[in-house]
Amino acid sequence: MNTHRRNFLGGAGALTGALAAASVSKVALAALPEPVLQTSPDTMAPLAPATGRPYNPVVTLNGWTLPWRMNQGVKEFHLVAEPVVREMAPGFKAHLWGYNGQSPGPTIEVVEGDRVRIFVTNRLPEHTSVHWHGQRLPNGMDGVTGLTQPGIAPGKTFVYEFVARRPGTFMYHPHADEMTQMAMGMMGFWVTHPKARHPLIAEVDRDFVFLLNAYDIEPGSATPKTMTMLDFNLWSWNSRIFPGIDSLNVRLHDRVRIRVGNLTMTNHPIHLHGHEFEVTGTDGGPVPRGARWPEVTTDVAVGQMRQLEFVADEEGDWAVHCHKSHHTMNAMGHDVPTLIGVDHKDLARKITNLVPDYMVMGERGMADMAEMQMPIPDNTAPMMGGRGPFGSVEMGGMFSVLKVRRDQKPGDYANPGWFKHPPGTVAREFDGALAAPARTRDAGSAAMPAQHTPTRNIEVQVRKPGTHTGH
Amino acid sequence: MNTHRRNFLGGAGALTGALAAASVSKVALAALPEPVLQTSPDTMAPLAPATGRPYNPVVTLNGWTLPWRMNQGVKEFHLVAEPVVREMAPGFKAHLWGYNGQSPGPTIEVVEGDRVRIFVTNRLPEHTSVHWHGQRLPNGMDGVTGLTQPGIAPGKTFVYEFVARRPGTFMYHPHADEMTQMAMGMMGFWVTHPKARHPLIAEVDRDFVFLLNAYDIEPGSATPKTMTMLDFNLWSWNSRIFPGIDSLNVRLHDRVRIRVGNLTMTNHPIHLHGHEFEVTGTDGGPVPRGARWPEVTTDVAVGQMRQLEFVADEEGDWAVHCHKSHHTMNAMGHDVPTLIGVDHKDLARKITNLVPDYMVMGERGMADMAEMQMPIPDNTAPMMGGRGPFGSVEMGGMFSVLKVRRDQKPGDYANPGWFKHPPGTVAREFDGALAAPARTRDAGSAAMPAQHTPTRNIEVQVRKPGTHTGH
Amino acid sequence: MNTHRRNFLGGAGALTGALAAASVSKVALAALPEPVLQTSPDTMAPLAPATGRPYNPVVTLNGWTLPWRMNQGVKEFHLVAEPVVREMAPGFKAHLWGYNGQSPGPTIEVVEGDRVRIFVTNRLPEHTSVHWHGQRLPNGMDGVTGLTQPGIAPGKTFVYEFVARRPGTFMYHPHADEMTQMAMGMMGFWVTHPKARHPLIAEVDRDFVFLLNAYDIEPGSATPKTMTMLDFNLWSWNSRIFPGIDSLNVRLHDRVRIRVGNLTMTNHPIHLHGHEFEVTGTDGGPVPRGARWPEVTTDVAVGQMRQLEFVADEEGDWAVHCHKSHHTMNAMGHDVPTLIGVDHKDLARKITNLVPDYMVMGERGMADMAEMQMPIPDNTAPMMGGRGPFGSVEMGGMFSVLKVRRDQKPGDYANPGWFKHPPGTVAREFDGALAAPARTRDAGSAAMPAQHTPTRNIEVQVRKPGTHTGH
Repeated sequence: MNTHRRNFLGGAGALTGALAAASVSKVALAALPEPVLQTSPDTMAPLAPATGRPYNPVVTLNGWTLPWRMNQGVKEFHLVAEPVVREMAPGFKAHLWGYNGQSPGPTIEVVEGDRVRIFVTNRLPEHTSVHWHGQRLPNGMDGVTGLTQPGIAPGKTFVYEFVARRPGTFMYHPHADEMTQMAMGMMGFWVTHPKARHPLIAEVDRDFVFLLNAYDIEPGSATPKTMTMLDFNLWSWNSRIFPGIDSLNVRLHDRVRIRVGNLTMTNHPIHLHGHEFEVTGTDGGPVPRGARWPEVTTDVAVGQMRQLEFVADEEGDWAVHCHKSHHTMNAMGHDVPTLIGVDHKDLARKITNLVPDYMVMGERGMADMAEMQMPIPDNTAPMMGGRGPFGSVEMGGMFSVLKVRRDQKPGDYANPGWFKHPPGTVAREFDGALAAPARTRDAGSAAMPAQHTPTRNIEVQVRKPGTHTGH
Repeated sequence: MNTHRRNFLGGAGALTGALAAASVSKVALAALPEPVLQTSPDTMAPLAPATGRPYNPVVTLNGWTLPWRMNQGVKEFHLVAEPVVREMAPGFKAHLWGYNGQSPGPTIEVVEGDRVRIFVTNRLPEHTSVHWHGQRLPNGMDGVTGLTQPGIAPGKTFVYEFVARRPGTFMYHPHADEMTQMAMGMMGFWVTHPKARHPLIAEVDRDFVFLLNAYDIEPGSATPKTMTMLDFNLWSWNSRIFPGIDSLNVRLHDRVRIRVGNLTMTNHPIHLHGHEFEVTGTDGGPVPRGARWPEVTTDVAVGQMRQLEFVADEEGDWAVHCHKSHHTMNAMGHDVPTLIGVDHKDLARKITNLVPDYMVMGERGMADMAEMQMPIPDNTAPMMGGRGPFGSVEMGGMFSVLKVRRDQKPGDYANPGWFKHPPGTVAREFDGALAAPARTRDAGSAAMPAQHTPTRNIEVQVRKPGTHTGH
Repeated sequence: MNTHRRNFLGGAGALTGALAAASVSKVALAALPEPVLQTSPDTMAPLAPATGRPYNPVVTLNGWTLPWRMNQGVKEFHLVAEPVVREMAPGFKAHLWGYNGQSPGPTIEVVEGDRVRIFVTNRLPEHTSVHWHGQRLPNGMDGVTGLTQPGIAPGKTFVYEFVARRPGTFMYHPHADEMTQMAMGMMGFWVTHPKARHPLIAEVDRDFVFLLNAYDIEPGSATPKTMTMLDFNLWSWNSRIFPGIDSLNVRLHDRVRIRVGNLTMTNHPIHLHGHEFEVTGTDGGPVPRGARWPEVTTDVAVGQMRQLEFVADEEGDWAVHCHKSHHTMNAMGHDVPTLIGVDHKDLARKITNLVPDYMVMGERGMADMAEMQMPIPDNTAPMMGGRGPFGSVEMGGMFSVLKVRRDQKPGDYANPGWFKHPPGTVAREFDGALAAPARTRDAGSAAMPAQHTPTRNIEVQVRKPGTHTGH
């Protein structure tokens, strides 16, 4: 696997120069924590706390947790808002805005009661601010440009300080030119761990976090359009798209928590295969036990955070994805007329004229697109991709896999590879092996037409042997 | 009422030929249950179980339940994925993909603990698979092409087998070229009845089920576009649109359950008039009693299933519909500038040029469109239609009527016709009949201007007799 | 502040003439309650009940409550459906349809058990009806044109009568040419107060109500397009957009209720800063205490009403807004390619050709747009506006401010001005004042690279002094 070194854009030098020329004195700079940055889009192992109170750290999918320094009892973090290059999937790099080298920014983890000081340096070409979504804090630390603070001008560093008063799942994002800056990828996760056992907060074995985000990047280009309101073409988790999203690897019978926050423009119904879960908390706090609903799909609205919890008691490779089917696909040509059931020789020619150099869908559906060798523009993720043990998964976007394994070690987050199914437990082509002596239909089926008495005018047609080809 | 015999498309013969030529041996074919198919889009009476454990069966709106055969203790079903012609409303037939002759496919009803074997034959031109949404099952039976099984190639039959481990409301749909296949109508309902009285599952008198689906079919054509992500123009229940959706006919004081699953691309807020209901279950399981909310509108997110329950204790004809007003309309011309309050002679000419042969809206709103005799293309449902006892209901799409009648017999699902209102209970033109000796306003209204002290600068204007025309 | 007198359009005279010529007899007219109308879009003080049972009245944001008269024990209201001019923000007036001079119509407040009679006069150019969303009532009073009543023809007055059987939060809107009439602004709020203390309905100090609505008005024009389904460009509360939405002014430690109803075409996640709240009721009734979730963002689906309740225990100016970022912006040019990081000399010229006379966004984001002096068309609200104490808030649409003040008097709803922050509680530029003797990183940071053991291939880069410009 490649290590993608941070590729400073031509423009970045100028920005850095601007920072150097800014009015921050040498003395002040000396007191700033060194910013830590990340050059890889891979999932980092959890960051166990070496100072302050202990907790069970989270794992940020295709992301990382920001280290801090203790300064006279205060946890100090340094966020740097800056242009970044994010590898959204293997072979596809987007030019985004983020924090500390990646988009989303690093996850911030603290403990209930911690006093927190966050330095925010702005290396963007316009002013910004940081809103600490969901936190209880002094009004002047709320990060709303114009309303509670002036914007942080390019080259400047601001300081925020407050006590993390309640445990929970939060996020941070700009409240300055908000639509642009979020469309460009500026956001991050925040987890405040409880300082003691909490009656509504379970101890879990695995605690994954990710943000839902969306981009509108034309195939072949690298920078998002920032005025898009509905027609995004890249639906991502932590600015990664399938097959670029790492799997969630757990041990059989682990209690698993998945924390999800939504900073797109629409709802995302997150669906887990093979298990039921409960939403145990929101950005407003833990959900009382008696108020929890069993779900296999929870709708995460914009600006909401949801904690999903379940016991991973079914072995296998279980899909987890947004259930809107166009959110599990990557960029494609829109407004293409259907070709199903049509002799499409002429149409295909017209479409190729409209969407030159892109893709053509067949009159037989699109399932075999993964097999086609259509040319696609450079720096573009295939619309439906990802190989599984049985061929193309035909997915993109907001899709990953929960891998539940009996022999996954506690604390081991490594990908165990594909599931080995016990014999006889995979759907397979019917070859007559089940063929018990062909009992004709029993009473149930014999009585069937009579049972199907129509409400008004209903006809049940039972195909007889010989009257239908092939049966 | 017409019985619409299955109209095999020209292409279907070739597909059947493909099946005949497939590698399924004669022996194997003999063991397959005969596929049962349906030729009518009408609501069928519930299918009482003649074998296996008893239960109170559901009614699929404009649909039906699939019969099964018992084979050495296993309930065997046979689904056939194939092109179908679905009459979406009287006079409007769509060319879809479905199962066993219709879209959606038949409802599958089993009992908790049943061992179930489903044969799936693919008569589509591309591979498919079936995902049993919400079920606990062996990972290899989960139906995700590439990830848990290979796709079912055209002409092949696959077999799935698992135990229906938990009671509930589920659905099935492809997990192969998913966006195309669901845009074409491939989906079906699944109900697992509890094997014994369940503390959280009420016994109900009527149990209706339907799926929310959406299509993008240009007026005058018959096949959906399959790349549409947002701008669908047909919002349907079980691939039917008002006035083609059957009413839900119940007896006064019946306990009614409506199970709804959403396989569109957006949320649908299902609104019931005249009654409050609770969501008693999801595809994740029954909702604990203490966690239920009273609602008149519940938002069903994509991929979610919701069980609505209420006592039908108000007689009458009660609208039940999606509350997004463009989802209670059928296909129309978009992007038409408003004509309200405009002398539109020129504009109307321009629009007619843009949308030839379709419709023109007047400067006085659109309520009289139902009365207009605008030419519309063949094989198109009117945008707003449906006649009620008082004229046009001016609705389309996701709209139906709950008919609550004192004299509806238990088990009788027939349409009782329009409600006969008791005298004096219908909103009517005011003719002065209420005119008690015209008491002038009492203290309440006299004191009104004083009460309306503005927060900042507010003026209440009470029209005086004589100062306003007509009063 | 201006008082905007009602500006009768040229066409209004003709409509009034139509009413005069209608078939309502002089006798009947004498018995109608005089219609009360409103000429201001400002928030009116609550209307304390002078007759009937007492209750704690609500405050309608940028709206008002309709007075009534008692007639032999019946509360009589008179709604007049008519074209109105609504000032949506200072300097921007929209030509809408509404009730009694404004859009939305006035709030109706009654008490559980009240017998209510509502006269509805139609001064629109097409028929209408009123559906009393969420109410228990005789089927013929449900207001569904065609299904439960004939439409109210232009010039006619209909009468509705029913008992307000259950306390709660409701709304009213047409069920006739619904999409057009709601797209034009026809809707209003309805609150039924409990007749006695209710175990699930708290007594609150402040009770605000507003409706979510959306319009599609091209910049420079005044009348909404009525066929828009998704691409609205004005997202409003009570037909007002920021900075035209009044603030919610409360006293520290007040128990506050905000009742919100959604009559747009999409979900709105309402987000409150600085406080957690619970949803205590829906249009279906009060939510059981044990079923309530803590939230900072609740998703209000179309056709739903939500009661948010919290104790305002944090002083300051707290943003409250829809969290979809394009819903906190006003009308803009769509489909504009991104300019970020691009030398945009040519592009800007092209865009100006596409969107003449409108706006250009810079390569440095859009935060400085509020400072630009771009020409915008007459009668248009700026895309991002509103001044706060620290400059432009860069917001529009569905955005307001909860102002929590220690010295706000009970019952005083006046705007207290901007918050005065205690010293040291506002995020500020870092000037080294925190600079304790530059302790190098403690164990936490020293150990950091070791902790960041990659799952697969992760690199943490700690910038060393001297190796990075400026630090």
